[in-house]
Amino acid sequence: MSTFREDGAAALEWVASYLEGVRERPVLARVEPGAIRAALPSSPPDDPEPFAAVLEDLDAVLLPGTTHWQSPRFFAYFATTGSEPSVLAELLIAGLNQVGILWRTSPALQELEELTLDWLAQLLGLPAGLHGHIEDTASTSTLVALAAARHARPGRRVVLCSEHAHSSVEKAARLLELELRKVPVDEAFRLRAELLELDEACAVVATIGTTSSTSVDPVPAIADRCAEAGAWLHVDAAYAGAAAVCPELRDRFAGWERADSVVVNPHKWLGVTMDCSTLWTRRPDVFRDAFSLVPEYLRAAEEVASLSEYTQVLGRRFRALKLWAVLRCLGRSGLQERIREHVRLARLFEGWVREEPGWEVVAPRPFSVVCFRREGSDEENERLLERVNASGEVFLSHTRLGGRYVLRLAVGSFRTTEDDVRLAWDVLRREAAHA
Amino acid sequence: MSTFREDGAAALEWVASYLEGVRERPVLARVEPGAIRAALPSSPPDDPEPFAAVLEDLDAVLLPGTTHWQSPRFFAYFATTGSEPSVLAELLIAGLNQVGILWRTSPALQELEELTLDWLAQLLGLPAGLHGHIEDTASTSTLVALAAARHARPGRRVVLCSEHAHSSVEKAARLLELELRKVPVDEAFRLRAELLELDEACAVVATIGTTSSTSVDPVPAIADRCAEAGAWLHVDAAYAGAAAVCPELRDRFAGWERADSVVVNPHKWLGVTMDCSTLWTRRPDVFRDAFSLVPEYLRAAEEVASLSEYTQVLGRRFRALKLWAVLRCLGRSGLQERIREHVRLARLFEGWVREEPGWEVVAPRPFSVVCFRREGSDEENERLLERVNASGEVFLSHTRLGGRYVLRLAVGSFRTTEDDVRLAWDVLRREAAHA
Repeated sequence: MSTFREDGAAALEWVASYLEGVRERPVLARVEPGAIRAALPSSPPDDPEPFAAVLEDLDAVLLPGTTHWQSPRFFAYFATTGSEPSVLAELLIAGLNQVGILWRTSPALQELEELTLDWLAQLLGLPAGLHGHIEDTASTSTLVALAAARHARPGRRVVLCSEHAHSSVEKAARLLELELRKVPVDEAFRLRAELLELDEACAVVATIGTTSSTSVDPVPAIADRCAEAGAWLHVDAAYAGAAAVCPELRDRFAGWERADSVVVNPHKWLGVTMDCSTLWTRRPDVFRDAFSLVPEYLRAAEEVASLSEYTQVLGRRFRALKLWAVLRCLGRSGLQERIREHVRLARLFEGWVREEPGWEVVAPRPFSVVCFRREGSDEENERLLERVNASGEVFLSHTRLGGRYVLRLAVGSFRTTEDDVRLAWDVLRREAAHA
Repeated sequence: MSTFREDGAAALEWVASYLEGVRERPVLARVEPGAIRAALPSSPPDDPEPFAAVLEDLDAVLLPGTTHWQSPRFFAYFATTGSEPSVLAELLIAGLNQVGILWRTSPALQELEELTLDWLAQLLGLPAGLHGHIEDTASTSTLVALAAARHARPGRRVVLCSEHAHSSVEKAARLLELELRKVPVDEAFRLRAELLELDEACAVVATIGTTSSTSVDPVPAIADRCAEAGAWLHVDAAYAGAAAVCPELRDRFAGWERADSVVVNPHKWLGVTMDCSTLWTRRPDVFRDAFSLVPEYLRAAEEVASLSEYTQVLGRRFRALKLWAVLRCLGRSGLQERIREHVRLARLFEGWVREEPGWEVVAPRPFSVVCFRREGSDEENERLLERVNASGEVFLSHTRLGGRYVLRLAVGSFRTTEDDVRLAWDVLRREAAHA
């Protein structure tokens, strides 16, 4: 194990140095498609190479082709944080290399997953007694939730969501051969509950924090309609759910306690490394009925249902360990502090945009994402964004709202400071002035 | 970052010590259901705790509830290895925290994934030019392969496999609402190709290395039948695929080069930490047509298809980095050496069983898993296995073959030596004698 200790110390130092210096790197990768692949051997080595060679190529070849999600100046999509406790927990997870297929194959994995899901539900103010488990991403969480809904409502093949719901809802519907109907939104990009037609619906997906504008669908009204019609209510709070750790932001989550299933991604705004998506349900019986299948070679004496009986995939990583490490090392107060700071920074940026002639905020800002644009055409805004991102100083992304090309600034990295947000605004104005 | 360096050094030392001492730990966890959860606080902390507290509870509470998949004396299911390069690569993956959704969100991730899949295809003797990507587990690989098959063959709703195919095939068929028909096997637990009825079939799943007995379906004959009928051929080599790195074992893989899709799990027998399932196809156009869906907020200037367009899930971890690290640090020769040693050890164990009165080998052994039993009833064999596993010295699992309860010894850990296999045999005979 001496090589392991030496190589490990080098890997650890690599990560520490990387995180220390990541703010100074060009955020968006500056390579042409195919360049990285072309710089590496086209065949694997016949004989063993030292781990140091991997680190060398990581620096020389891979880093220039890396978009730095850990940069405090990453403001695109939803900004994330691989926090220090989570990074180190991944090392422990790998060292233990647990394969959760049955309870007995890793009691610690299963029970810690159940416990941390309960902890997180408490932190977010979700009802007691929900059944929770971890999936890789919200794509899977939404898929299995809609599969459960299809199972619960045989013969009903329609799923309803707003036109701003995440694309994974459409992908899930496609795989499940359900018909997706998109319901129009109001002027604040919220699903219009009065337009829901539930006769053939097995499920409605309501979003708290849509991907484009982080709009919040009217969950109480949708829950009323679902209850009348007996339709399954799935709440997608993949990004925004983290904000429910702050009591003063809880009003945005009204009604989610009535959902049949809820998804939140701790790998988005709770400091957990990729990947970790948490899914709760108040109807675990339906999930188990839809998914459980225990072959002979997995029968065991103990009478404990495995988490794999509640989902599609048989084997699971020990993801609970990193979620547990983050919840402990940050604590409720540490998470609240970070979420509040992000909301403050987004509010600040929003104020700067509002006050500046020639710029416009184009959507309400319930969380930490600001949607805005510069006066002028879509093409001008698109070119502006390209110049901003080409500078390497910050990275933002875009969307389309009300038919118009819109810029998005998403605050979400625990390492982002007010100076970083100020830089983004300076770069935006500089590039707009040079157009 | 000083705390990170200190905590990291402690985490690294924890893993090094764990791996050094794991051979001496009871392999199968010795806890009652609920005990671990009961030993931990029922609510998360309000204030931050040090990372050291996580390590303390890991030792005090979690380890006693851990089944040691890294133990060289783990012979259950399919034994695996989280090899040192892969463990350390997980640290790098976490430090970089890449989120692969589009090429531009991590060119290094996408191009290294394409490259390593190509490397691995070369090592395994798969045809050139296949399109490959990484999924979490074979459950997902098989699901998306069968979704592609369903897409390629509209109106055909039957999937065929042997009664020994993995349960994930049945789960995938259930989610896709395809009818699964199980085809009888011959005396060596191989699918009887002449019994395939392909009129309504969209796909056939052929297994190279079934979970119960590691039997090998007659892929050339199945491929002929699929070609005649236009059915999709999916080859499940999740466990055994690794063995194709050895030319002398390639005869077991005859015909897999004709598959429409092939799955191999490097997290099983190739030293990669959980999770990493590799899926290749010669029909990427079908996958892309079935899965691609690019919303406005993910449109980018460059004309590069994202790997997410070939599967269900949008965001991916940088799993390619650990596969790359393992392929480099072990090399072709290192992988061959380990696979050959495992096959040798399994052959040795098989010989001991054959020569011992009162014991019986009950299936051919094409790879590194031996299926055997002691004379006597199913109940006697079941109790024997319970005593062996309760000893903590080794951990084996069981299956049912030809209606009989059967014990399985799976060699698959890179850390397993002949002494460990000898110990398993000693413990088995000792417990049988004491019955």
